[in-house]
Amino acid sequence: MSLVDLSKHIALGVDIGGTNTKFGLVNHRGQILEKGSIKTDNYVEVQDFIEAFYERVQPLLEKYSQEKYIDGIGVGAPNGNYYRGTIENPPNLKWKGVVPFSEMITQRFGISCKLTNDANAAALGEMMFGAARGMRDFIMITLGTGIGSGIVCNGQLVYGYDGFAGELGHTIVKPGGRKHYSTGSEGSLEAYASATGISVTAKKFRAEFPESMLNEYPEEQINAKTVHQCALKGDPIAIEVFRYTGQKLGEALANFVMFSSPEAILLFGGVIQAGDFLLKPTRFHMERNLLPIFRGRVKLVFSELDEANAAILGASALVWENKS
Amino acid sequence: MSLVDLSKHIALGVDIGGTNTKFGLVNHRGQILEKGSIKTDNYVEVQDFIEAFYERVQPLLEKYSQEKYIDGIGVGAPNGNYYRGTIENPPNLKWKGVVPFSEMITQRFGISCKLTNDANAAALGEMMFGAARGMRDFIMITLGTGIGSGIVCNGQLVYGYDGFAGELGHTIVKPGGRKHYSTGSEGSLEAYASATGISVTAKKFRAEFPESMLNEYPEEQINAKTVHQCALKGDPIAIEVFRYTGQKLGEALANFVMFSSPEAILLFGGVIQAGDFLLKPTRFHMERNLLPIFRGRVKLVFSELDEANAAILGASALVWENKS
Repeated sequence: MSLVDLSKHIALGVDIGGTNTKFGLVNHRGQILEKGSIKTDNYVEVQDFIEAFYERVQPLLEKYSQEKYIDGIGVGAPNGNYYRGTIENPPNLKWKGVVPFSEMITQRFGISCKLTNDANAAALGEMMFGAARGMRDFIMITLGTGIGSGIVCNGQLVYGYDGFAGELGHTIVKPGGRKHYSTGSEGSLEAYASATGISVTAKKFRAEFPESMLNEYPEEQINAKTVHQCALKGDPIAIEVFRYTGQKLGEALANFVMFSSPEAILLFGGVIQAGDFLLKPTRFHMERNLLPIFRGRVKLVFSELDEANAAILGASALVWENKS
Repeated sequence: MSLVDLSKHIALGVDIGGTNTKFGLVNHRGQILEKGSIKTDNYVEVQDFIEAFYERVQPLLEKYSQEKYIDGIGVGAPNGNYYRGTIENPPNLKWKGVVPFSEMITQRFGISCKLTNDANAAALGEMMFGAARGMRDFIMITLGTGIGSGIVCNGQLVYGYDGFAGELGHTIVKPGGRKHYSTGSEGSLEAYASATGISVTAKKFRAEFPESMLNEYPEEQINAKTVHQCALKGDPIAIEVFRYTGQKLGEALANFVMFSSPEAILLFGGVIQAGDFLLKPTRFHMERNLLPIFRGRVKLVFSELDEANAAILGASALVWENKS
């Protein structure tokens, strides 16, 4: 054990989302000492955002600086680039172009800042505080409106040559398949297994099967949640929506396993509320597509982190990450 | 620069194949000072192989031990496991079960031995002596009778949790597609883009197009080489065989890029003799399936290493690999 008193060290974790930016002061145990949020979309100019953020957070930092060391600021952001500390052409933020966010934060606060994309931050959070504690090789998949992913090999996040590794949602699971609503690619995992993809599948299936309970909802209410409700009531078409989704997801996961041979794949995000309706077919189709040497060896589990805090914890973990 | 005289340090690189085992004494510049081979398949028992190998190699080691330091022995072997130093159920060797090969070599020679699978060794060879010098993120794909792969992230080979990472030949590129002749999986990359896969495609295409030059050969002579010869003569069906192969390969490569964002993908092995007939469609379909942020950024190149020596160089590089 080190003689350094880790309990005195804290980090500021920041999760930048299209609507809200959440932040928290986190200690080495993953306890959030303080947290708060400001509206991201109130600020068309990133400079104004930084200023408002500083005014909101600086008093907190001063309060804790009496008795704690603030080791740094970690930021998870859409299209965040670890190497450059930039947020690059984020589709769901008002800030355009390449924003040197990390540098701006460091200059304003006088504290070093590390930045990565939100999915990578989530993976770090799992490694430091969640279901991946002690693991050196795992893959984290976030199934939300889109699909994000963070890949850890040899105990390190895989950033790749240019810092954009881990775009697993955009891998093609069915060549020539369903067109992605924004990228235009055909047959990507995100087009099937994101919440958005699930609602596309559900709308298609309910049109084919008029007897499905899914037809009791108006079009705009067909989403992963309502499909789950119908599945719970025993609607076979709703159950089939998750089975189909799980097949596509499981086939993709098998390919990921044969790439990096992880100890575990962690699933995270709103879609996992579907529980076994999704998990069972996913596992079946993953195993089915694996080489025998991989079968039965890879844990497929849900995240242990509370979704409301995970992004903050993950961003703070970035401050303490070992990067060779 | 270190004061250590690297020119005095050598390693024994060993490439175990189903028929022949090749070995060489290699220096830090990738020069092979001595090389030779013994018949692998003469030895049903691995103990007998080790003994014959020792008798053949030990005199060489003694000759060089006067003026050089022998840093270790590196072995590339089918189904080689880096963590355990074992060769596990190799399909094309006579030795069955789990062979503690590295330990046996160390005991017999009194020299430390590292072992990995042949494709990983090839990737290390490229990183130390070939086209991937100085790269920290790349993927090496060997297109031979089968498809092997070695993945380097953050300057380290990706072995994964159990040492079997990098089975990219077995990733599924077309769900429900062509059945693999040995694994039984459906639609794997190896079923399409290996030399074996190319001959399957060629036989199928020539049956559909009686006018193809491919029909001038007897069935057993249809292989990647004869398809290449027909392509060179302008046979559109032979050219289409490579285009189809390149499409499947390119689609797979796009997924690999979105996984680990490599600086380069290196292609190696007999199939690359097809040159641009294969490379051009491969590149086209890789780019087509990439997210825009990756397009035009990943080098797709052929290996620079002489195929006859690459395996020996790669195995020797294992001795000098930095592994955190």
